[in-house]
Amino acid sequence: MSAALPADIAARLKDGVDLIPAIAQDATTGEVLMLAYMNSDSLAQTLTTGRATYWSRSRNEIWIKGATSGHTQEVLSISLDCDGDAILLKVNQLGAACHTGDKTCFHNPLQFGAGN
Amino acid sequence: MSAALPADIAARLKDGVDLIPAIAQDATTGEVLMLAYMNSDSLAQTLTTGRATYWSRSRNEIWIKGATSGHTQEVLSISLDCDGDAILLKVNQLGAACHTGDKTCFHNPLQFGAGN
Repeated sequence: MSAALPADIAARLKDGVDLIPAIAQDATTGEVLMLAYMNSDSLAQTLTTGRATYWSRSRNEIWIKGATSGHTQEVLSISLDCDGDAILLKVNQLGAACHTGDKTCFHNPLQFGAGN
Repeated sequence: MSAALPADIAARLKDGVDLIPAIAQDATTGEVLMLAYMNSDSLAQTLTTGRATYWSRSRNEIWIKGATSGHTQEVLSISLDCDGDAILLKVNQLGAACHTGDKTCFHNPLQFGAGN
């Protein structure tokens, strides 16, 4: 599938940015699930299909989240940040967001506070 | 201030990544506030001080969030994602996170769903 990004949306993205970090947040629990990247094609596809679609930097290809695992993300809302170089998706996550089987990718806490 | 990143934490970051996207989430409301970047120095400083500290890509310098505006972020937890190339901070946000005065930087919704 190919989809062109509407010009009015493209104009709202920061100039010169090819890959935009996109945060997926569980729409129900508020949990931050993962961070991945979108190029204009994957953003266009997400906007058209309502299914979270990223750009895989390791495979260098469009990545429909859950296409292999079945753990898809139904997108309920998409917002740009103030300077147009980050995206927030609120999603209904089917199954685990993380390839490890965890609900969220952010499951590695760092100890801190030595200087507090 | 300078602070070295502990070796055990540095080892958990993805190799070859200089700037890591860091998501700040309001610890109370769950709202995603902003996305900024950390290098190892700003991560080390955040871990030591408990105050969110980023790397400003535009000014090319350490950026203690709120140092100018007063809108600081007290960090309650820090997590790495599964492959060590993204950070999630849960914070107590004083005032607005966004330089526009909005609570969150993600205040620009995109219309979508034409293909649903």
